[in-house]
Amino acid sequence: MIKHVTAFSNPIVKATQRLRDKKHRRDAGLFLAEGLRILTEAREAGHLPETLFFTRTTADHHLVGALVDAVEAAGSDAIETTADILAKLSGKDNPGSVIGVYAEFLTPLAKMDRTSAEIWLVAERLRDPGNLGTILRTADAVGAGGLILIDDCVDPFSVEAVRASMGALFTVPVVKARWEEFLPWLRSGPGQLVGLSLDTDSDYRAATYSAPTFLLTGNEAQGMPDHMAAECDLLVKIPMLGKADSLNAAVATAVMAYEVLAQTRG
Amino acid sequence: MIKHVTAFSNPIVKATQRLRDKKHRRDAGLFLAEGLRILTEAREAGHLPETLFFTRTTADHHLVGALVDAVEAAGSDAIETTADILAKLSGKDNPGSVIGVYAEFLTPLAKMDRTSAEIWLVAERLRDPGNLGTILRTADAVGAGGLILIDDCVDPFSVEAVRASMGALFTVPVVKARWEEFLPWLRSGPGQLVGLSLDTDSDYRAATYSAPTFLLTGNEAQGMPDHMAAECDLLVKIPMLGKADSLNAAVATAVMAYEVLAQTRG
Repeated sequence: MIKHVTAFSNPIVKATQRLRDKKHRRDAGLFLAEGLRILTEAREAGHLPETLFFTRTTADHHLVGALVDAVEAAGSDAIETTADILAKLSGKDNPGSVIGVYAEFLTPLAKMDRTSAEIWLVAERLRDPGNLGTILRTADAVGAGGLILIDDCVDPFSVEAVRASMGALFTVPVVKARWEEFLPWLRSGPGQLVGLSLDTDSDYRAATYSAPTFLLTGNEAQGMPDHMAAECDLLVKIPMLGKADSLNAAVATAVMAYEVLAQTRG
Repeated sequence: MIKHVTAFSNPIVKATQRLRDKKHRRDAGLFLAEGLRILTEAREAGHLPETLFFTRTTADHHLVGALVDAVEAAGSDAIETTADILAKLSGKDNPGSVIGVYAEFLTPLAKMDRTSAEIWLVAERLRDPGNLGTILRTADAVGAGGLILIDDCVDPFSVEAVRASMGALFTVPVVKARWEEFLPWLRSGPGQLVGLSLDTDSDYRAATYSAPTFLLTGNEAQGMPDHMAAECDLLVKIPMLGKADSLNAAVATAVMAYEVLAQTRG
């Protein structure tokens, strides 16, 4: 049903605001997503918020209405509120007209069907939420089967990661796994593990990829540890012509993923 | 000379902290860069800070010493301070051992030698400082001649942009120009203007690029305006296989730039 909340002191507002903090997200199993474009993409992918905060604006009338109707039909709460409260929940000055509180969801490794896609993205100890979200956005774009987060990666449900994913968090399966789980699973079926590395002479465009390709990106500052590199079927590098020795992790992943896509699509 | 500052209330500390704000940067013509890796890269590229803040740590002893020596030799101030003050100046919990205050520098459009590189990156109305810094980092990696910022782009000297550039701000020439200046300059010599667009059927890998290629990336939310697209010699798109209709702007720029690099290097 539609409720009306206009006070910052309202307990629902306070509880929702706390979801910006990782500990509260984990305890509640909930996270925040904002903006009409992302929430509409989520709805189309079958994800409705447990609670929807919205303001009525003429410009977005139709899509906001569709969200409110879907949330009500699902028996959840749609809360009409003010732009000030939306801004407070979002942490942005201009949060748009909707914010949704969603149940966290991850896909178990065992449920991934490796034959369903030609490319899979794998990241280990990714630290930056913007990079994680951007890699999810790229995963969607290249038709990746999913993003597998190895060991201690940043929270994919952080406000920054959700924002950078531009909705891809709702359309791309995300798996969390320890390396010790991932490696036996990978080797239990077909799959070429390709690592991005600075310590190889193999140019990424000269290499040959075979689907399903699992593209492994290492930690932003350190790259992947030697024992992971040793398990890769192929290590490749992206040429660096300038002074720096590495690309941004999300950029490097995308340059690689589009090369794999071009080869595996033929 | 080396000074010692340990009080947050010190006027140099307060003035430096204000450089995190765009208005103060512009008024002072100064900006902040942090981290030993970035400041060392700056030094090697010929840029020394007007003021250097540092802490003595055993791990980084040699490179910090080299920076302090260079700053003193140039007659500027090296200020030994505490980790707490560095953290306050940086806005990060773990800012590393050095922060430098640098004079802003831009390259005039007329000084760019288009024959000096095969790729040039051009961005119009770029809004996100992380994207700007990441594009600079990519520009360095692909050996671009420079980054040309068209119309109202985000400040390349913001803390976030400098950080995301990982030092490339000091190695890649940055130009600011209005479109009305850029276009006549471009047409006064050789150069293929290539625009990234969603409104074309030309796949970016099927197109042929000829150096010097000027790669134009539009605003994150809106893409480039029609009148700019109409001036492009070539419009190309990157395939999008998923639900979303666009990539992150820095990712799209990098995927394109590496394709141009592969073709122009042969």
